[in-house]
Amino acid sequence: MNRARLDDRLADLETDGYLIDASQDDANQLYLSGFTGPDPFLTLYADGEIHVLVGGLEYGRAKREAAADGVERHADYDYEYGGREARNDMYARFVRDKGVESVSMPPRGPVGTADALRERGIEVAVDADDRLREVRAVKTDEEVDAIREAQRANEAAMRATEDLLAGADVAGDGDDAETGVLLHEGEPLTSERVTEEIEVTLLRRGCALDQTIVAGGAQAADPHDRGSGPLRANEAIIVDIFPRSKATKYNADMTRTFCVGEPSETLREWYELTERALDAALDAVEPGATGEDVHAAACEVYEEAGEPTFRTDPETETGFIHSTGHGVGLDVHESPRLATGGEELEPGHVITVEPGLYDPDVGGVRIEDIAVVTEDGYENFTEYPIEFVVG
Amino acid sequence: MNRARLDDRLADLETDGYLIDASQDDANQLYLSGFTGPDPFLTLYADGEIHVLVGGLEYGRAKREAAADGVERHADYDYEYGGREARNDMYARFVRDKGVESVSMPPRGPVGTADALRERGIEVAVDADDRLREVRAVKTDEEVDAIREAQRANEAAMRATEDLLAGADVAGDGDDAETGVLLHEGEPLTSERVTEEIEVTLLRRGCALDQTIVAGGAQAADPHDRGSGPLRANEAIIVDIFPRSKATKYNADMTRTFCVGEPSETLREWYELTERALDAALDAVEPGATGEDVHAAACEVYEEAGEPTFRTDPETETGFIHSTGHGVGLDVHESPRLATGGEELEPGHVITVEPGLYDPDVGGVRIEDIAVVTEDGYENFTEYPIEFVVG
Repeated sequence: MNRARLDDRLADLETDGYLIDASQDDANQLYLSGFTGPDPFLTLYADGEIHVLVGGLEYGRAKREAAADGVERHADYDYEYGGREARNDMYARFVRDKGVESVSMPPRGPVGTADALRERGIEVAVDADDRLREVRAVKTDEEVDAIREAQRANEAAMRATEDLLAGADVAGDGDDAETGVLLHEGEPLTSERVTEEIEVTLLRRGCALDQTIVAGGAQAADPHDRGSGPLRANEAIIVDIFPRSKATKYNADMTRTFCVGEPSETLREWYELTERALDAALDAVEPGATGEDVHAAACEVYEEAGEPTFRTDPETETGFIHSTGHGVGLDVHESPRLATGGEELEPGHVITVEPGLYDPDVGGVRIEDIAVVTEDGYENFTEYPIEFVVG
Repeated sequence: MNRARLDDRLADLETDGYLIDASQDDANQLYLSGFTGPDPFLTLYADGEIHVLVGGLEYGRAKREAAADGVERHADYDYEYGGREARNDMYARFVRDKGVESVSMPPRGPVGTADALRERGIEVAVDADDRLREVRAVKTDEEVDAIREAQRANEAAMRATEDLLAGADVAGDGDDAETGVLLHEGEPLTSERVTEEIEVTLLRRGCALDQTIVAGGAQAADPHDRGSGPLRANEAIIVDIFPRSKATKYNADMTRTFCVGEPSETLREWYELTERALDAALDAVEPGATGEDVHAAACEVYEEAGEPTFRTDPETETGFIHSTGHGVGLDVHESPRLATGGEELEPGHVITVEPGLYDPDVGGVRIEDIAVVTEDGYENFTEYPIEFVVG
């Protein structure tokens, strides 16, 4: 954690403190508390100190793990298994005990807690800027290293994927499967089978995973379709992997698009165009440039080639239909946004750059690298090659 | 989803509608919308109909997947990539478009959205009872089958664990490792190695996983310690596995405690006592009994044997220091609670029963089964044997 940046960004709050009520699943909570509590707990930042309040069951582990200045437990506020009101009373006592009469909460903090504190006379303001999210966006060297390490696991999983695809046979007339379906050891090679290979590879390297995308053909034309069923020759197969290190909790993110066999002329053009869009967007990455600038650089490549983007047609369902990238950290999607309205880039921002083209009649192509913004540009720490046709 | 129960529980709301702003990570959202959206989206229940609002990128998939009566996209409200205020304006228009001037939100709904709607003249009340959580607690037959299926994967993973432990050697004077450490293929058998085996087994069976517990010795005395480092002979090793089916999104949950070698007399007594507490608690499970009754049944077994519980000593850090169980469904921890204050059991509740004893000087023992409450008692669908000493 960058404590100086945290203190700086929270210095001009108009409230006495900053309150988070969430489990470790909330990246702001994990960042501020440093504690991997599985159930919601309170973290209060006030007077430059971080205070954590947990249940008795978590107390020992929280004392050992938390990056907080103080850890307390429910029993310190005479709370036993009581009802909801008793719990909210305890929360109010904990906040007041720190000399705090007004708190800011992040926009996605729980309204139940906010309203309960208000009923108890504590002022609650919404920190609409989500300052902790902004603090988290700029990584320390240690955080960058954690992401880099997760990216190495990512590349091992991508390698396993490419090997599986490159080694596949293609069903012909004599086979049981439909002609053109990829075969692995005589069985149709499905999205699910490739995903399993990816996830096992990541687990063996200490990473957890959420929702890997292995989508071919028309499925690849929906950027959020995770893919299912048999993969086929001559179609574009999008593989998007975003592992999370179990040890550090930091994510990585990378996409490659593969084709086994002969892609159509259109797919070849799309791939070449997308490589150019990737290069153009990366070229635009430097401190002072905005996320919007980087997005514009990718859009221009597509627009000049006559492909629709959200800039030329906000309702288009084909073409370049998403943003150019996003920050990566404790959340796989975090600040900054590389999109229209995207904020200014700063050294330490870790971002993806991931242009793509989509049309159900053609398929989908996306290429995604992950990079850190440096003092004079960026360092791309994606080592995986960019190659379309495999096998 | 039990739509009749949903309609019934939402019938007497004092607001016009019920609003959820969350991603699929929120079980209420996944349940009500039926849509696996990765980013937060709105679901509004009003006049007996479910309406979903998503971004353009999710629209096609939401139309196919969602269990809603209507799916709309941001463009239907003339929203393009705008700022926060424009987004909140769109949310208010979506709500009003359904004839809704007041909404209830669950206690953990986002305060940012609640306050933004209030600023736009829409009344927002907190549904402190979390009614959707209550609706979710009672499962349909289909939901029970989904949990049962995840439990079969769980048992395969537990079998792999027991085989690994039972097949382990114990380091002696001639070995590199410390005497008493378990060895697998000549290397110390660690919590991490066993966890990996569990997770790979679950992945191969279509399950995701979050935080498996494999904790031995003093680590097992902290019920939430996930365990790390070499496992040892003659100590109690707690293995708590809670997989989630990727297809259905339903969880299972089971714990066993194993010992390779010779457990101490105290550990043997604890194990026997915990088996008795499990039986006593299960015997108390029937419709009309409360979660508090079931918890009391387990506590009494321990208390009669002189072991501390939260009932006899709210601040104890040893003995039976957690609740007896919890509901399982889309969340691994959900209603009902089998604890002091726990609600009345109903047919269709799927619950864990998991008594245990803990003391850093002795170790930890926990045995956990999963069962469904039936019309006249319960059906325990845990098939895994209860045996302490293995190998």
